[in-house]
Amino acid sequence: MAGEGYTNVQVGVDYYPEHWDESMWEPDVKLMKESGVRVVRVAEFAWSRLEPSEGDFEFGWLDRAIDLFHKYGLQVVIGTPTATPPRWVTRTYPDVLPVFADGRIYHEGVRGHRCYNSVSLRKFGSRIIERLAGHYSSHPAVIGWQTDNEFSMLDCCCDRCNKDFRDWVRAKYGTLQHLNQEWGTVVWSGEYSDWFEVTVPYGGSPHQNPSLLLDYQRFQWESCIAFQRSQVEILRRVCPEHFITHNFHSYPQRLNMHGLAEDLDVAAFDYYPNPSPQKQATAPYSGALSLDLTRGIKRRNFWIMEQLSGPPGCWFPMWRTPYPGLIRAYAWQAIARGADTVVHFRWRSAAAGAEQFWHGLIDHSNVPGRRFAEFAQLCGEVNGLASLLEGTEVVSRAAILYSHEQQAALRIQPQAEGMDYYENIKLYHRALTRLGISCDVIDWRQPLEGYRLVIAPSLYLHDEEASQSLEACAEAGGTVILTNRSGVKNMNNICVMQPLPGFFSRAAGVSVEEYDPVGSENHLLVDRESMLYECSQWCDILRPEGAEPIAWYGDDFFAGAPAVTVNRFGSGRVYYIGTHAGEDYWLKLLHDIALDAELVLFPGLPDGVQAFTRTGEAGDLLFLLNLTRTAQTVGLDKHYRSALTGTRLSGPVELGPYAVEILMTES
Amino acid sequence: MAGEGYTNVQVGVDYYPEHWDESMWEPDVKLMKESGVRVVRVAEFAWSRLEPSEGDFEFGWLDRAIDLFHKYGLQVVIGTPTATPPRWVTRTYPDVLPVFADGRIYHEGVRGHRCYNSVSLRKFGSRIIERLAGHYSSHPAVIGWQTDNEFSMLDCCCDRCNKDFRDWVRAKYGTLQHLNQEWGTVVWSGEYSDWFEVTVPYGGSPHQNPSLLLDYQRFQWESCIAFQRSQVEILRRVCPEHFITHNFHSYPQRLNMHGLAEDLDVAAFDYYPNPSPQKQATAPYSGALSLDLTRGIKRRNFWIMEQLSGPPGCWFPMWRTPYPGLIRAYAWQAIARGADTVVHFRWRSAAAGAEQFWHGLIDHSNVPGRRFAEFAQLCGEVNGLASLLEGTEVVSRAAILYSHEQQAALRIQPQAEGMDYYENIKLYHRALTRLGISCDVIDWRQPLEGYRLVIAPSLYLHDEEASQSLEACAEAGGTVILTNRSGVKNMNNICVMQPLPGFFSRAAGVSVEEYDPVGSENHLLVDRESMLYECSQWCDILRPEGAEPIAWYGDDFFAGAPAVTVNRFGSGRVYYIGTHAGEDYWLKLLHDIALDAELVLFPGLPDGVQAFTRTGEAGDLLFLLNLTRTAQTVGLDKHYRSALTGTRLSGPVELGPYAVEILMTES
Amino acid sequence: MAGEGYTNVQVGVDYYPEHWDESMWEPDVKLMKESGVRVVRVAEFAWSRLEPSEGDFEFGWLDRAIDLFHKYGLQVVIGTPTATPPRWVTRTYPDVLPVFADGRIYHEGVRGHRCYNSVSLRKFGSRIIERLAGHYSSHPAVIGWQTDNEFSMLDCCCDRCNKDFRDWVRAKYGTLQHLNQEWGTVVWSGEYSDWFEVTVPYGGSPHQNPSLLLDYQRFQWESCIAFQRSQVEILRRVCPEHFITHNFHSYPQRLNMHGLAEDLDVAAFDYYPNPSPQKQATAPYSGALSLDLTRGIKRRNFWIMEQLSGPPGCWFPMWRTPYPGLIRAYAWQAIARGADTVVHFRWRSAAAGAEQFWHGLIDHSNVPGRRFAEFAQLCGEVNGLASLLEGTEVVSRAAILYSHEQQAALRIQPQAEGMDYYENIKLYHRALTRLGISCDVIDWRQPLEGYRLVIAPSLYLHDEEASQSLEACAEAGGTVILTNRSGVKNMNNICVMQPLPGFFSRAAGVSVEEYDPVGSENHLLVDRESMLYECSQWCDILRPEGAEPIAWYGDDFFAGAPAVTVNRFGSGRVYYIGTHAGEDYWLKLLHDIALDAELVLFPGLPDGVQAFTRTGEAGDLLFLLNLTRTAQTVGLDKHYRSALTGTRLSGPVELGPYAVEILMTES
Repeated sequence: MAGEGYTNVQVGVDYYPEHWDESMWEPDVKLMKESGVRVVRVAEFAWSRLEPSEGDFEFGWLDRAIDLFHKYGLQVVIGTPTATPPRWVTRTYPDVLPVFADGRIYHEGVRGHRCYNSVSLRKFGSRIIERLAGHYSSHPAVIGWQTDNEFSMLDCCCDRCNKDFRDWVRAKYGTLQHLNQEWGTVVWSGEYSDWFEVTVPYGGSPHQNPSLLLDYQRFQWESCIAFQRSQVEILRRVCPEHFITHNFHSYPQRLNMHGLAEDLDVAAFDYYPNPSPQKQATAPYSGALSLDLTRGIKRRNFWIMEQLSGPPGCWFPMWRTPYPGLIRAYAWQAIARGADTVVHFRWRSAAAGAEQFWHGLIDHSNVPGRRFAEFAQLCGEVNGLASLLEGTEVVSRAAILYSHEQQAALRIQPQAEGMDYYENIKLYHRALTRLGISCDVIDWRQPLEGYRLVIAPSLYLHDEEASQSLEACAEAGGTVILTNRSGVKNMNNICVMQPLPGFFSRAAGVSVEEYDPVGSENHLLVDRESMLYECSQWCDILRPEGAEPIAWYGDDFFAGAPAVTVNRFGSGRVYYIGTHAGEDYWLKLLHDIALDAELVLFPGLPDGVQAFTRTGEAGDLLFLLNLTRTAQTVGLDKHYRSALTGTRLSGPVELGPYAVEILMTES
Repeated sequence: MAGEGYTNVQVGVDYYPEHWDESMWEPDVKLMKESGVRVVRVAEFAWSRLEPSEGDFEFGWLDRAIDLFHKYGLQVVIGTPTATPPRWVTRTYPDVLPVFADGRIYHEGVRGHRCYNSVSLRKFGSRIIERLAGHYSSHPAVIGWQTDNEFSMLDCCCDRCNKDFRDWVRAKYGTLQHLNQEWGTVVWSGEYSDWFEVTVPYGGSPHQNPSLLLDYQRFQWESCIAFQRSQVEILRRVCPEHFITHNFHSYPQRLNMHGLAEDLDVAAFDYYPNPSPQKQATAPYSGALSLDLTRGIKRRNFWIMEQLSGPPGCWFPMWRTPYPGLIRAYAWQAIARGADTVVHFRWRSAAAGAEQFWHGLIDHSNVPGRRFAEFAQLCGEVNGLASLLEGTEVVSRAAILYSHEQQAALRIQPQAEGMDYYENIKLYHRALTRLGISCDVIDWRQPLEGYRLVIAPSLYLHDEEASQSLEACAEAGGTVILTNRSGVKNMNNICVMQPLPGFFSRAAGVSVEEYDPVGSENHLLVDRESMLYECSQWCDILRPEGAEPIAWYGDDFFAGAPAVTVNRFGSGRVYYIGTHAGEDYWLKLLHDIALDAELVLFPGLPDGVQAFTRTGEAGDLLFLLNLTRTAQTVGLDKHYRSALTGTRLSGPVELGPYAVEILMTES
Repeated sequence: MAGEGYTNVQVGVDYYPEHWDESMWEPDVKLMKESGVRVVRVAEFAWSRLEPSEGDFEFGWLDRAIDLFHKYGLQVVIGTPTATPPRWVTRTYPDVLPVFADGRIYHEGVRGHRCYNSVSLRKFGSRIIERLAGHYSSHPAVIGWQTDNEFSMLDCCCDRCNKDFRDWVRAKYGTLQHLNQEWGTVVWSGEYSDWFEVTVPYGGSPHQNPSLLLDYQRFQWESCIAFQRSQVEILRRVCPEHFITHNFHSYPQRLNMHGLAEDLDVAAFDYYPNPSPQKQATAPYSGALSLDLTRGIKRRNFWIMEQLSGPPGCWFPMWRTPYPGLIRAYAWQAIARGADTVVHFRWRSAAAGAEQFWHGLIDHSNVPGRRFAEFAQLCGEVNGLASLLEGTEVVSRAAILYSHEQQAALRIQPQAEGMDYYENIKLYHRALTRLGISCDVIDWRQPLEGYRLVIAPSLYLHDEEASQSLEACAEAGGTVILTNRSGVKNMNNICVMQPLPGFFSRAAGVSVEEYDPVGSENHLLVDRESMLYECSQWCDILRPEGAEPIAWYGDDFFAGAPAVTVNRFGSGRVYYIGTHAGEDYWLKLLHDIALDAELVLFPGLPDGVQAFTRTGEAGDLLFLLNLTRTAQTVGLDKHYRSALTGTRLSGPVELGPYAVEILMTES
């Protein structure tokens, strides 16, 4: 793994020289420089300009643009242009185009119109990347690459995917007998008697075998990884000095981000918090989760490759314009939670194309306005604090385990009305954030050393490895929280024939006697202090087998039955939450656990105000962010100095609308 | 018509030996025996195990399973496996797969993926049935057969259906001139000038000719009947001692159930009342209608082939788990209304496949729990009362006429916002059920002898035969209730050019001067006592021509116009209800009519409590069922003895949640 | 341009002789004559009767029908039958059928199943029209033709459309370089490197290039025009004495009605106001707009070719039946707003086909009832006033500019949640109608001479010509109202790189500093009198550059910023409304402007009562219409005489439900 130069703390912009008359370039770059911009991403959609017809490569325009960036001291990240195969490719080699399960074609004229398994896409994609990489491998301005753009699952059912899937299945299972057994195809006479009968799930019916559907997702995840790897191999070979990243977007995606990121140096995220006041109660928290999840992809700091710069809008009606301060505050939120470089999308709104109203920093009029001024302020602040921030990291003692496989399996078979894997994670993460507890969000297969608290939501698919990892965590003194719908299936999406929660029963010291999928109905939960809370979605009726009940149901035929238990395991504890408790309960539970586990809390955070810490050799940097339109007051427990203004702060501090404070302990 | 052995009153289970390791079979069968199970349905989805590849028949495993049932004294019903053609059939003979109106294929990998007219399906389906029938015709455990599984309309538009439909149309109408005239194709230039222009309704547009759409439904109904008949003919020939049934499901279906059942010995129903408390106000009543409708299919007792055993769930979120007592109470409701054998679906929840969460009596853990214990109690009770119950029947003096043809025609052209043929039948049936009036639900073409009350909802399509049947009923002293949208069309879905209600005007003594499709708006109805009721959907403004008005509209421009009339006809009476009156009005009207017609009522039934009677040589068995989660009190007008407990009961009796009483008059 | 005979003020009916047994014809025509009917439309769906098989023409039946009309003195308009190609066409020449963007076929068996560019449709359509025209060119009863029926956009993506579109694009742009530049295809690598890459927008994705999507709409508009022109050319040549019209319907249509009407003598509209009381608050106003828009198509009086006669209903549930007086009142509303001939759809409800429940004047029973009596009254009244009405016209000094191009562009890229181009026009028109101000609704490219007030909603696409036209209007003393989202794009749907509102800034004396797409949120507007109003959808933050602010925002970060400005320009004024103000604000603003501009107002109109004037040599005819179910009172400012009854009226006058008054000033 090579590549460096991605650890600077800095601000950048996404710029499309090909969209503008060349006479506008130098004024643009000059203004970037003056505003404090340090890095620019280019070319990720420019295939038709780089290779206007088959084999006709034209890099001159990009040379001139990159030379200009270099002249002004800006560094450049180049995107590989495979997300937008040009029309000469798709018209001549239509196997590039994905095919939906019902046979319709995903036509060109948009973006993302490419099957990851297409032979033609691989051929022409590799060729343009080889040329680009060779051309810019030693350009002094170029520091790294972005693969493709915003990968997502297409569930392609083209003939090539069909063939490749068949081969994938054969490689995984070896024999038809094994395949039939592991997928349980005997149900509904779905048994395969010949390999040619194995196909992608045509028709896209949810009635299909869930083991097939999950493996088909796995195949598509691996197809995407293999597609990216074909690019990474070229870039590593030709540009060994450059780093490689990919810009993930819009969580939750049906995507194996962790698998993709194994081939990358650094992860990136495209961050578009919704600026509507109607989203003010949720956007700061779902955004925080997205950032923590991105940091968890490689368990290190990351990039924002596209950051909100104005009202998004496109084929959908435009969103609200960002309130004064909002653009800057969300950029600082990203940095607080581990972003080093924040690249704003985009320098100027596009005058043409489907994204005309996905606004950039500068409007179509090319008159810099309020938003641009705020951006320039941000650049100045970041550049001023860069040396302080560089090398600092987020250190969390709590983790939430995220799994794209659980998410996929739970979408294939929704368990209860209103139950959503990712929405539930949002709730747990939001409770931690409101308590001011720093939390990592990592892949469920990651090692858990160092965590004092691990929340493992709905480990629905499971195996001994998963169970033993959590057991080890608890044995070492950690606190593990399991929830309902854990231990239901083996990894091939087959129900295990043992009491729930399967292998996790050992650690949890509990078994599920019976369950009731209560769905959207509200039910009652009663804790040891006889406090009442709401619960919904699911009610496991628990039989403690060593564990101690700490909450019980308050109604229905299972009133009085244990709903939440805690089990001492090794020197740690394992909680089992048999129902979907409301946020109030989680706040109470996590607060108590945090005190026990000696996690750092920030008491008294108002709604929409977040506290988060980056830690470096010189100590902690405490970020206080007011992500609301109204002034809020927080109480400081120590004496601090503001890194932004130098002011000394302590006790109650008022944060104006979208105010940002970066505080260092007064020594 | 041969076949016997289907009149036992008993409990069974659906069992899939092919889903489980053979080592589990004998423990399962032993537990069935111990619990009181008497009958098992097998093999209806097992084609891929019975014929793993073309012409390779393997019945050994089923022999071993059926021998085991025999060893423990259980009887067996075998399902023909045509609802799930295996992959070797569909991949090699793709004409088996249905084609939607827009050309998309209904792919395999699910169930029900078979066109009833497919030549290959008929060929391979007949062959496997011939083999199965021959193999098990004289096995001592085997008593009967279920054809296919849960027939439904697929509206297939494959080339074969297209050709067969053309032949069907030609056979029905003979000449193009006759066809064009009977369908009124001149409208919008839809005339056929050559037989090859006759096609199925490609595109599926509701704008198409309604006569074509109705005949296309008829063609598909007959295709399904012909498909089943091809199976029945084999079974009758090879297994003359066995009975034949089919398991209908989820009313209303677009299906000619009465036509299908003409080839069967006994009808069966798959009964899954929704256990949610949010459905408690409706599920007991829609369930009662389903049971009465099933009993009406052959006008005799029936089977439940699949009975609720746990929370259903699958590709949709799981339902609530059944409340304690609910499984048992709904099984007794089925028996009360004419089920003899009740087969529970399924023994144990499937570990694999799309129906993993359609829960059986035993969970995946294979630990029998609360639901299983309740089931075992039920088995004991049924076995204890079997000799008392066998031979008893439901005797009703009231009937509702149901017609799959009216239902289809009214779906092709919805008349008014909120008007639904089957929902309206639910209302009339619910009113009767709340009054404790026993009611048959029979095909509208059935003879009406013996009925004192006949409700004939919306006989929209009509002919002289229909009119004369009702006239005969009234002449003989019966009470007939007609509703709006009667007599609108001839049987080819063409509007008749005479005043409404067409031929029914004679019996009703009324004609419709004008109508107003008021849809979902609420309007007022005023009866002779000046009581006000709500009405909606439709307002016929009536002109009495011999009939006497008994209710009038209370608002809008037709305020004061007659809305409901009654006409003396022969020694009976014919009501015409020109609007959709609310449940209150129906309760009042039916109560008065019941008193006049000397129908048996059960006064004072609380919501969710149902009373129903089975009658045999030894007298009446009165079933009292509390289908709610709370205790309810009913008043008994006589002295009774409980057949379940032997207790003597009279006066006010409290029924606990989901309590069941079976009462015999104290002699 | 030839053709006359379309300026009579009269009532007609749509009649389908081919639907009825010939024995019914003469009784029908006799009753028409007796009722006062003067004109009949026939044959627009009768292709299969006129040409039962290829080349086999049979006009005898139509001869007999038209001779019968002639015998009774009725005049005849013939519809060209191309909206319903018969089955022998579509089965033998399937290129007639449109193809959707996803490849599905728009199958026959309905109506409108014809691609305007189909070679076979053009060939066989022209042939039948040539024959029909030749046959009836000199029939004394025949006075004119209707082209096809209710044109609408099909967005056909068949191979022919694909080829024709490519040719159209090539003809418009000449070179690929020019095309790529004008569409901005470089975005997302959408550049064309060869003409064969240019296709219709397969897939129908809204993500596609908006310039392509707009030009594809233009191509389809022109295809429809060319299709009609191919018919008009024949009719003009063969029937030079006849007039030609087309019946438009259901606004807003995605259609270039103004372009289509350039080839016509007179425009026609199919008018089906919804009779539901729930639509009473809106139907009279959206109806008024439809009529004014139709009058604006050729800026002269028009026909109603289909007028409401009973409850519509079909593949959708039936609507309410018309309240007593409603049919007549809406017919008079049409005449008031410029209809000369009003043809009712239809004589008698169809007994067959998909439109059985689209009720005519007479029900299926063929017994004329309440609705028919009302129609006969209408005929008598119209015939009585015909000489008074003929030659009168609507003279408006206010106009709203409507543009099918703006509408299309704003649908391709919706700007803000809840913002709809046509709905906004409805609001402005409704405010004018409630104030009693007569208003034309004309194409935005029309000359504006004579108008004192011009409302130009969202001229989103623009050019210098558009700007100069409005400038000229203002310079000459007119008042121009511009709204937000003006001057955003050039005519190729590319954003202009200048401050908003683009070229309109000169006249408006204002520029948009920033905007906020507030969507469905309600915000506050404050006027000079500190009155508060609601606004929504969009908030332009205005920077006056010569204009005077007259309203400001009342909340959010832009509180206090100008929202509405007025600029003196020449001897006129230009308003710029930067937000979507509610109806209250528009009533206030337009009232003030009307006083300034000396427009005629009718003060104190109750909700649902409309006043409108036709002017002739003999003076004004003031129509007062109560389009509600309750009596309403209006105050007359002069002494009038009722043209219908001769009564003298002045001061407060009560109008009964659906009452109609036609008043002449007492001299």
